[in-house]
Amino acid sequence: MNFATLETRLQSQKIPLAICLPEDPETVLAAREATDLGYVDCLFVGREAPMRELLHRVTPGFTPRLVPVQSEEEAAARAVELVRTGAARALMKGSVSTPVLLKAILHKETGIRQGNVLSHVLVYEWQGSFRLLTDGGMIPHPTLEEKHDILVNAVGFARRLGIARPKVAVLSAVETVSFKMPSSVDAAVLARMGERGQFKDCLVDGPLALDNAVCEESAHHKGLHGEVPGHADILVVPDIDTGNVLGKSILYFGGLPAGGVVLGATVPVIMLSRSDDRQTRLNSIKLGLAGWG
Amino acid sequence: MNFATLETRLQSQKIPLAICLPEDPETVLAAREATDLGYVDCLFVGREAPMRELLHRVTPGFTPRLVPVQSEEEAAARAVELVRTGAARALMKGSVSTPVLLKAILHKETGIRQGNVLSHVLVYEWQGSFRLLTDGGMIPHPTLEEKHDILVNAVGFARRLGIARPKVAVLSAVETVSFKMPSSVDAAVLARMGERGQFKDCLVDGPLALDNAVCEESAHHKGLHGEVPGHADILVVPDIDTGNVLGKSILYFGGLPAGGVVLGATVPVIMLSRSDDRQTRLNSIKLGLAGWG
Repeated sequence: MNFATLETRLQSQKIPLAICLPEDPETVLAAREATDLGYVDCLFVGREAPMRELLHRVTPGFTPRLVPVQSEEEAAARAVELVRTGAARALMKGSVSTPVLLKAILHKETGIRQGNVLSHVLVYEWQGSFRLLTDGGMIPHPTLEEKHDILVNAVGFARRLGIARPKVAVLSAVETVSFKMPSSVDAAVLARMGERGQFKDCLVDGPLALDNAVCEESAHHKGLHGEVPGHADILVVPDIDTGNVLGKSILYFGGLPAGGVVLGATVPVIMLSRSDDRQTRLNSIKLGLAGWG
Repeated sequence: MNFATLETRLQSQKIPLAICLPEDPETVLAAREATDLGYVDCLFVGREAPMRELLHRVTPGFTPRLVPVQSEEEAAARAVELVRTGAARALMKGSVSTPVLLKAILHKETGIRQGNVLSHVLVYEWQGSFRLLTDGGMIPHPTLEEKHDILVNAVGFARRLGIARPKVAVLSAVETVSFKMPSSVDAAVLARMGERGQFKDCLVDGPLALDNAVCEESAHHKGLHGEVPGHADILVVPDIDTGNVLGKSILYFGGLPAGGVVLGATVPVIMLSRSDDRQTRLNSIKLGLAGWG
């Protein structure tokens, strides 16, 4: 699957999308665009007066359903509740602060946590199909256990994107284990867990350098064979610095179509960034809608 | 400057290049190609019999000057000596092991050390001009002091590549200082040292995320102004995982022309990798030749 086929799949649907605090022009404009494209039925969860003022000023004629609340905290709780009860099948962050939204998502009784961690996944299209990169946005320096959980989140999402048995490369700067490189040690452990059947529905290999993960010729130069080297669907990076730089390189140097969502809840959470361009925002929304069912 | 203008500059020269242990086909072929292009006059420092056998078999008709030695260690010492005495003005690693060559380079009496550390720099061409990325190849987890030295090495080389006052971005995943992200803390220190005039002939800013470093629009979205954001010539990465993944992304996802050399000696050291394609190898040789004078 890629963004074009995902779009085709979405066009036959109209997914109820809860937007938490759509009180900034970027969010309202993105919601309007997704609505116009026919993918979503927006539920605006926020303070009534600023929502109405913005709709009137920024997108006249656009009439999403309004769910009025009194405060930011209430908006977060209410948006999450809409997802939990099935009234909304997708969730997008508006101008609510990230900690407030995450707190509502992770609430023990009223939340919608599903995985062990919340992790970011960047989905980019390369050579005609979706590839995933994780985590470049949520966990600064994941422990080995957190890397395991990040991997599990990504595999689940890749399967929703049509990759039945994702090939996972755990990245390092080297493809042999070096005690001086903790990333290579962690990768070895995760790969071995994969061989022992401790991950479902995926193939895990590592440590792999990026070129060994995505280019068969480079992998063979290093004597690496098997199903994953050269063909990785999912790249698990050592830390947020690596993931962030790789994700941005894919966008800025590679110019590849991409979008990102946060995983670990019952639905992916769409969190747009002001520095994202229009297409990246729309791609992120499409990915968020692909997460249920 | 970019690879085309560098090539033009090199074509009027014939730089004596010492190649340490050219006893593998890849090295001999690369040496032959650079010779045919008119850039270099090769000095083959290695064991006479294998060198002659390879030349005869792989590149018949190619007659570089031979500097016969008895062992790998002697090849390293002799190649370095040729550079130190000025008989060679560039140095390339053949099949000598990296530690053996580095030991000869760093030898207190007979070596050619210049900087405080040996660091790798990837030079890529983007939007028509050279950009540098460091260090993705030599120092796994540099200390703050080593990052300083890596930065100094790169600035010196950038100036040789025609960038009179390089703009240096010290990268992190974020552009504000977070105590949870050591990369952002180190970047803040280096940027402040730059403001205090502790780096010569360059401008230093950080912490910057990659997009803030290379894209003016992204920088402005984050409220970042000044000469460096959006226009960085040199990217200093937090560690080898980040540098490696970014360098390979530039090559594999970006498809940008690139090459790399090792800095910290009186001349850049050309170290080709088997997984480099032909153009990357040639680019690395060109960069190595750009390092003197």
